[in-house]
Amino acid sequence: MAVNLPPPDPAQLYAVPGVDLGVAMAGVRKANRKDLLVMRLAPGSAVAGVFTRNRFCAAPVTLAKKHLKNDVLALVVNTGNANAGTGRQGLERAMQVCEALASHLDCDAGQVLPFSTGVIMEPLPVDRIVAGLPHALMHKDDWLSAAEAIMTTDTVPKAFSRKVRLSAGTAVVTGIAKGAGMIRPDMATMLGFITTDARVGEKTLQAMLARVADRSFNCVTVDGDTSTNDSLILAATGRGPAASARRDLLKLEAVITDVARQLAQAIVRDGEGATKFVTVEIERGRTAEECRRVAYSIAHSPLVKTAFFASDPNLGRILAAIGNSGVAGLDTGKVDLYLDEVRVAQAGGRDPGYREERAVAAMKKPEFKVRAVLNRGRAKATLWTCDLSFDYVKINAEYRT
Amino acid sequence: MAVNLPPPDPAQLYAVPGVDLGVAMAGVRKANRKDLLVMRLAPGSAVAGVFTRNRFCAAPVTLAKKHLKNDVLALVVNTGNANAGTGRQGLERAMQVCEALASHLDCDAGQVLPFSTGVIMEPLPVDRIVAGLPHALMHKDDWLSAAEAIMTTDTVPKAFSRKVRLSAGTAVVTGIAKGAGMIRPDMATMLGFITTDARVGEKTLQAMLARVADRSFNCVTVDGDTSTNDSLILAATGRGPAASARRDLLKLEAVITDVARQLAQAIVRDGEGATKFVTVEIERGRTAEECRRVAYSIAHSPLVKTAFFASDPNLGRILAAIGNSGVAGLDTGKVDLYLDEVRVAQAGGRDPGYREERAVAAMKKPEFKVRAVLNRGRAKATLWTCDLSFDYVKINAEYRT
Repeated sequence: MAVNLPPPDPAQLYAVPGVDLGVAMAGVRKANRKDLLVMRLAPGSAVAGVFTRNRFCAAPVTLAKKHLKNDVLALVVNTGNANAGTGRQGLERAMQVCEALASHLDCDAGQVLPFSTGVIMEPLPVDRIVAGLPHALMHKDDWLSAAEAIMTTDTVPKAFSRKVRLSAGTAVVTGIAKGAGMIRPDMATMLGFITTDARVGEKTLQAMLARVADRSFNCVTVDGDTSTNDSLILAATGRGPAASARRDLLKLEAVITDVARQLAQAIVRDGEGATKFVTVEIERGRTAEECRRVAYSIAHSPLVKTAFFASDPNLGRILAAIGNSGVAGLDTGKVDLYLDEVRVAQAGGRDPGYREERAVAAMKKPEFKVRAVLNRGRAKATLWTCDLSFDYVKINAEYRT
Repeated sequence: MAVNLPPPDPAQLYAVPGVDLGVAMAGVRKANRKDLLVMRLAPGSAVAGVFTRNRFCAAPVTLAKKHLKNDVLALVVNTGNANAGTGRQGLERAMQVCEALASHLDCDAGQVLPFSTGVIMEPLPVDRIVAGLPHALMHKDDWLSAAEAIMTTDTVPKAFSRKVRLSAGTAVVTGIAKGAGMIRPDMATMLGFITTDARVGEKTLQAMLARVADRSFNCVTVDGDTSTNDSLILAATGRGPAASARRDLLKLEAVITDVARQLAQAIVRDGEGATKFVTVEIERGRTAEECRRVAYSIAHSPLVKTAFFASDPNLGRILAAIGNSGVAGLDTGKVDLYLDEVRVAQAGGRDPGYREERAVAAMKKPEFKVRAVLNRGRAKATLWTCDLSFDYVKINAEYRT
């Protein structure tokens, strides 16, 4: 059960001029299931990408990184098979998919970005994917359908859309994502695709995407496991208003960041076994980097996460996780801790006015915030995470069996 | 249910000349439960210690570190309350316990090392502990009783003993420990106390303990959470044979390491919810440090740990964890992976001769080894860990409620 994540309303998902979507049931792993998405981009689109830092990176990731240097005309995404841990043969098969789509589009295989998600260490069934391409190319599908076509064990399709008024007119930003937490190297992967019709230079777009990722997908964690296939793509078709003035670029970036954040948070809300959506905010650290370390130390502690699950204001676990973050010279005697607006610890010890029932009330909500104030600087960082429940163990212990 | 960890046989636990043990039921938190241990050391004993690196370190840890500089005559350990997160008052109360014991022993409070384990952020009930001291001092208890007196949620007392023949005669090494995985900042703590009657200089002993800890307690992890109270003490009373020749010191260190390892492994075997005891061995890395990083990345991955629980040879999760370790320049195309003697992955991909039933058979055992060969150097590292089960979540979610 996803936490506060209703399915997208198709009426709220705006088409993006210059982006054509087509899906198919290619039977990659299971029959009668949307498992293939082709996204065509108008010629001249600027395309940017950020990818997994896992050193076991999947064949399509290797290829997508390489093809990103060319003028990209299409993205092709299959579910059911991650084409990861497949060696040289995996690269050849990913390339065969690119070639097949390129021959339909009358372009070069290097102008196609491939993405795969699903079981790993199994050979990619190229023939079925190639056979599914004509159907995906013949149809014009909407964003909801596209979001559904990239789901694996997600329980809710993830798609968000916004409009932004620029000097030259209104631009559209629409994105989709999949993943139940960056934590599924087996049904691998967090994938995100965000598009806009604004006209943006490719270098500008790549720099923008790096910042966007740092404020969205790089701020979520379910359990700290980074998949072999994680990819985030940002495409600007240029069929809408130009964004080149600084003011326009800032506005556009803000809206893209918002869409990316909603997608990233949706992944946590739909995290495996998640029953709580928790914002971890670290304030008044010396650097943003040390704030992130403290936040990750809290968000990755199995003891803290089980306490979230139990709505148990186990302050000791949170303080111990802060103490464990490895931040040099951290004076724990200065740390204040809040659960939503309830101050539970002050100067490293229990708040004199602490009342457990108030802390429990804060944690019983499906969404709450853990805020630690380090009192040693002016930097801050935010992370979104979920709890560790029985179902997390159940899902992951029973997944393959 | 602890994994392959029978209760100690009292006949196999040797008394250590120069060490007197006494336990009491002080009612620190619950009545009718051994919760206080006093360990007296013969004058002139050498005492060494290593302590938690968690920056939220408990009051008794702060004091024990300081008092270690003096000639130590006694250790006092209470369960039921960790005296952690208790600020200045916590230090005062820990000192009061030292003073009370010192007045009985007619020594200085600085010659007493205090240790506490139990709930955190609660004031230490000094009066009850002080009232329990006379009983502990009047009795002569054995090592099994001492091991029982320091248990919190451990299901099995942990004590091991060995003899070692030195040039000047046979020495005894006996140790006890508590903890169900370094993972209990609430019933906090891993505590270990190892003693020998051998005569060893204090500086030599401290250097020896650092090496012993690195090969024992620093090689276990249940979930990566380091408690606020972790402490390991090594005392040599000098009432037995001297160990000063290099050969004798090496023999003694080997036996102490063995006792420490058995204690450390016992903590993992008794880990919260543990159903499997897993040895993670990383070979042929460039440095021991990078091998440890890879080992921790495997041992801390919740996905890998749930796969252990399910006896599911989910190679992708293990390979992804290796890829996630952050080791610079790691060529995943060179990594071989073994489950016990079964080679499951070769050169970063599935072994051509892979047969799932053999991998499953290896993982179904209560103890098995995961061995990754990085093929880029000559260093190695070993870690002991356990699986992540339903019961881990259950224990930690329901612990306080």
